Amino acid sequence: MIFTSDNWAGAHPAIAASLTAHSTGFAPAYGASDLDRKVEQRFNEVFEREVAVFFVGTGTAANSLALSAVNRPGGVTFCHSEAHVIADECGAPEFFSHGARLAPVEGPEGKMDPASLEAQIARFPAGFVHAGQPMAITLTQATESGTVYSPDEIRTISAIARAHGLPLHMDGARFANALVALDLTPAQMTVDLGIDMVSFGGTKNGCWCAEALVFLKPEMAEQAPFLRKRAAQLFSKSRFIAAQFDAYFEGDLWLDIARHANILSARLQAGINSSPNARLAWQSPANETFPIISKALSKQLADKGAMFYEWAAPRSAAHLVGPDETMIRLVTSFATTQEHVDQFIAMLG
Amino acid sequence: MIFTSDNWAGAHPAIAASLTAHSTGFAPAYGASDLDRKVEQRFNEVFEREVAVFFVGTGTAANSLALSAVNRPGGVTFCHSEAHVIADECGAPEFFSHGARLAPVEGPEGKMDPASLEAQIARFPAGFVHAGQPMAITLTQATESGTVYSPDEIRTISAIARAHGLPLHMDGARFANALVALDLTPAQMTVDLGIDMVSFGGTKNGCWCAEALVFLKPEMAEQAPFLRKRAAQLFSKSRFIAAQFDAYFEGDLWLDIARHANILSARLQAGINSSPNARLAWQSPANETFPIISKALSKQLADKGAMFYEWAAPRSAAHLVGPDETMIRLVTSFATTQEHVDQFIAMLG
Amino acid sequence: MIFTSDNWAGAHPAIAASLTAHSTGFAPAYGASDLDRKVEQRFNEVFEREVAVFFVGTGTAANSLALSAVNRPGGVTFCHSEAHVIADECGAPEFFSHGARLAPVEGPEGKMDPASLEAQIARFPAGFVHAGQPMAITLTQATESGTVYSPDEIRTISAIARAHGLPLHMDGARFANALVALDLTPAQMTVDLGIDMVSFGGTKNGCWCAEALVFLKPEMAEQAPFLRKRAAQLFSKSRFIAAQFDAYFEGDLWLDIARHANILSARLQAGINSSPNARLAWQSPANETFPIISKALSKQLADKGAMFYEWAAPRSAAHLVGPDETMIRLVTSFATTQEHVDQFIAMLG
Amino acid sequence: MIFTSDNWAGAHPAIAASLTAHSTGFAPAYGASDLDRKVEQRFNEVFEREVAVFFVGTGTAANSLALSAVNRPGGVTFCHSEAHVIADECGAPEFFSHGARLAPVEGPEGKMDPASLEAQIARFPAGFVHAGQPMAITLTQATESGTVYSPDEIRTISAIARAHGLPLHMDGARFANALVALDLTPAQMTVDLGIDMVSFGGTKNGCWCAEALVFLKPEMAEQAPFLRKRAAQLFSKSRFIAAQFDAYFEGDLWLDIARHANILSARLQAGINSSPNARLAWQSPANETFPIISKALSKQLADKGAMFYEWAAPRSAAHLVGPDETMIRLVTSFATTQEHVDQFIAMLG
Repeated sequence: MIFTSDNWAGAHPAIAASLTAHSTGFAPAYGASDLDRKVEQRFNEVFEREVAVFFVGTGTAANSLALSAVNRPGGVTFCHSEAHVIADECGAPEFFSHGARLAPVEGPEGKMDPASLEAQIARFPAGFVHAGQPMAITLTQATESGTVYSPDEIRTISAIARAHGLPLHMDGARFANALVALDLTPAQMTVDLGIDMVSFGGTKNGCWCAEALVFLKPEMAEQAPFLRKRAAQLFSKSRFIAAQFDAYFEGDLWLDIARHANILSARLQAGINSSPNARLAWQSPANETFPIISKALSKQLADKGAMFYEWAAPRSAAHLVGPDETMIRLVTSFATTQEHVDQFIAMLG
Repeated sequence: MIFTSDNWAGAHPAIAASLTAHSTGFAPAYGASDLDRKVEQRFNEVFEREVAVFFVGTGTAANSLALSAVNRPGGVTFCHSEAHVIADECGAPEFFSHGARLAPVEGPEGKMDPASLEAQIARFPAGFVHAGQPMAITLTQATESGTVYSPDEIRTISAIARAHGLPLHMDGARFANALVALDLTPAQMTVDLGIDMVSFGGTKNGCWCAEALVFLKPEMAEQAPFLRKRAAQLFSKSRFIAAQFDAYFEGDLWLDIARHANILSARLQAGINSSPNARLAWQSPANETFPIISKALSKQLADKGAMFYEWAAPRSAAHLVGPDETMIRLVTSFATTQEHVDQFIAMLG
Repeated sequence: MIFTSDNWAGAHPAIAASLTAHSTGFAPAYGASDLDRKVEQRFNEVFEREVAVFFVGTGTAANSLALSAVNRPGGVTFCHSEAHVIADECGAPEFFSHGARLAPVEGPEGKMDPASLEAQIARFPAGFVHAGQPMAITLTQATESGTVYSPDEIRTISAIARAHGLPLHMDGARFANALVALDLTPAQMTVDLGIDMVSFGGTKNGCWCAEALVFLKPEMAEQAPFLRKRAAQLFSKSRFIAAQFDAYFEGDLWLDIARHANILSARLQAGINSSPNARLAWQSPANETFPIISKALSKQLADKGAMFYEWAAPRSAAHLVGPDETMIRLVTSFATTQEHVDQFIAMLG
Repeated sequence: MIFTSDNWAGAHPAIAASLTAHSTGFAPAYGASDLDRKVEQRFNEVFEREVAVFFVGTGTAANSLALSAVNRPGGVTFCHSEAHVIADECGAPEFFSHGARLAPVEGPEGKMDPASLEAQIARFPAGFVHAGQPMAITLTQATESGTVYSPDEIRTISAIARAHGLPLHMDGARFANALVALDLTPAQMTVDLGIDMVSFGGTKNGCWCAEALVFLKPEMAEQAPFLRKRAAQLFSKSRFIAAQFDAYFEGDLWLDIARHANILSARLQAGINSSPNARLAWQSPANETFPIISKALSKQLADKGAMFYEWAAPRSAAHLVGPDETMIRLVTSFATTQEHVDQFIAMLG
């Protein structure tokens, strides 16, 4: 029973098979193959418009390149205080953007509070040379807390972005999980709500290494080929990333995988709700579940072979965790089975 | 008959199989899996000492991280004027090292001339604040010209590096091809000759994406984990790079592949030597061949389906190419067959 | 009555005279003149030890170069949330350190709270590659709130720095004002308390442009000559910065100027304490005073020709300011006279 | 007799007087004073159009900020191989532009050869992601060899810049000397010939520290306020740079100073031409003179108290210097007198 992270899983069989299928023969390097072209076209269909797609190797690369594409001197990007980009990327966004800053915005359940966002932006008045200048907003969908922004919530943030002339980026490391949770199309969850760029993640959802930076307004991508190459993210055998996405989109595999993970997460949450020994910190419709349990139980579970992270409760939820308690994080993926879930729930008592 | 580049090939069957074999189950992310550990240990054996190994996604990343690991303000790295690092990486080395400069060193057949190297270094006197300061030397083995530095040639450059207190890096994008050409062990070709860091390339030699930055003096790697993560080169499912290297080293597959490519390159060169319509620009024992042919013949070959690059003759060889002639580059790989070669030679006439 | 900032003043007559006196003749450029040497020696005397001194043009340069001298990939510097370095330098520290981050630490009256500092550092566990790694602590003396850290307060922060192996920097844009307020020697306020680097400011205290980055441990300055030159901060006619410092130190002019400014600030505070229409937000022994007055009075004062900034109350003091009130900032300098102060107090009513 | 460099001189009396005159009273900081405004307006008059002016502290800062204002990822700037920007700035241009590269262009007497410039640009085909992409051309006027580009020569380079869509920068560290040598107006030497940005140097021509980055097309300066602040080049007491330029322009002092230096340089050249012991390496109409003398004479001159640099002969002039000979550089400035020159010529014999 491994719930440590969705990136502890391997690769979905269909994706592994696609890699093997495309391993023979010759093809133009550096993204110029027919397969690269085909998958780029597939992205146009997914987003129902002409987009500019750049395959990269990691989600950190996609996020960091997105910010570097809208970089300005003294620039400041606004993100949730627990966002991956500010909490888990060892300064990659700052490095890629030559020192542009990330300004944390508070908000419950992993989502930026619009008023806090406005307040943070107000600290950097346009044209005031001492403080730096607003450069972008990035939101994470699904969030690091397993929650998802509703269309209305995105619309609110998007209006703020527009009012300040700021590009809006979506960190979609768990894009598919959010999509399935909201029952929206990719276009409905992004461009229709004012998103300009998406870090489109495949790795956590069954690929081994398939991430794409998608510019929904292709004209924003003018420098992106050079930014990617300069960042050492242009793969010579790019077709192998394409091969993963090819299988990923085939027959909506990506949505099936995400649905599977979300359903198992919901099953975990139902089990937790039924247990006298655990309770949910908050509802989370995507593939991450955050129960609060006693420290003693946490140890017992680990001793019995369940794997997961104890999770530092975010500031907004710290009061929920009692002194002898701990919050843990459970993540499901294509490799998680109903048996894993039921076994875990049984161990919970 | 595709001789465009060794990165136009796919993945060797054994490597594709290893990817599939390791696609199931769960494993710790970010390089902490048993397979990562096993392959790191394998690198120790390959280099016959404790080394520090960092898997990355591209050769450009390995090269650029190596330079960033020895970075200094105003730093200058010396490389051959046609080296990949200066000619084909869109400024990645400068980006990774915050603007440290690459200083080109001339020399015939892709190899730095020691006297030219000394002359270039002398332009940056130690401690002279206006000119910048020497920071590293990087040599490419095998070179971009398909040639290889002999042990004595490396020793000479290594002595220069030592005399100036400079770390010495080897861009081994075609490391295996050089190794086989020289019939040396990895240790003999590197640490025994004073090499400090190696960009150990697997991609061009049958992997789909497997590169490693190897510090032969592990103490030089202190900041490397952070440099890699900050550069968005730490793969969550790192085990898939490990899986490629695992098969790569198994039963010396990597040497077999390189030997295969070198032999076919030698066969090409023999054919060219026998043809009245082509001649070699220079001998090249690794897997790249540089014939000079008439422009007319180049066009005919292309029309008949042979694929290759016309190659701008390096300054030192420009006089070899007549006005109606062109230099072309032919690269062999695991996917090249004897039939491809013979067919090409036949077309040459 | 101009209390807007101490950098609205010009240059003290003795400093202007020194500039003129040294404007004739010839002298080696780029910091190699006898006068540069003499003033460097003077810094040794001021700090009672061999220090490494680097003249630069702005305080932002001194701060940013200090951080760049201790830079690490993924590095994080801890500073007060209202520090100049994080609030007023348009990302210069991040730019100079290639994206190293500034982490804000809360605390009342412009001073870092030690517990908050520890908590912030704890968010970046040593060796944990995802979060970044602690790199430095910087404190401001006198603070942006006109307060000064007591020796004990510095000692506490210094102990935290040492416990985590972090270099400790002091932003001394108003170094002299703090020194006089505490009645300490430079060595007592810095090296004796564990400070490693000082941004030694002369500009706000009567020079026109004289700042120095002082390494109290000269061995930390190894790369500093190159960092400064690369940052375009090495002045060809460096002797003119030296000339300012020469007069600055002569007969302890610098302490006299600071004493003058502090005394007038104290006189302002006494006047405010006596006025029914104003009260102090906090005591501030250096040359900045922060009264709270009604918005109406603020407007009246401005209409009568008093110049000052309305000042956003720091989070920790926001509750002190009533709904119809505002906090203002009054800064004194060598150019402020007792008449200015008394006139202002009279206007206060 | 000090001919080492024009930056070994101090400050012209009128400029020193202006600094003193403006040292009293209060004025808005950070470039917002009336004097700053007045001098900015003066620049409009000098260039006969609305320009955007940014005062900075060093010529290196002006050059580096100019390049950063037109920065692109993978960018390459073309400059003469002996230009200050590539030879004497310790990587500042690369640092300010996050690693954009400087590509050296050969040419005799310090001036880029147009054919060599075209050949260098051709190495970076537009849109070719591997090689980087052309970003700017910078020429030095007067050159590091004391020569000046004629209007026709600038026009030729400007046409190349336009053909490739590249902004054209002029490093005018010795702008005034070139202007006087050519008897042109600033507009005639810059904007009329297609120059987009000028590093306008005052320091070498009698100021102590007064440099300005001038955008002849103000719309190119949109990010410049932030670039300057982020680079720690925004002086709080900016009025002191303004005060220098105020005196500099008053009554065409700047042209008088430059004329003085050029005339003395011409007198040096006449004396050298008359001497049997020296000859000119080339004609140089600005304020630098490059004689070739015997090594023995060089030593004698130094022993008798003449100060100058022995100068590494540029590649294009290396054949002019015999085995027992050396090239030296003599620079004149406002502080040089006719007596200095005549004394030196007399010592020459």
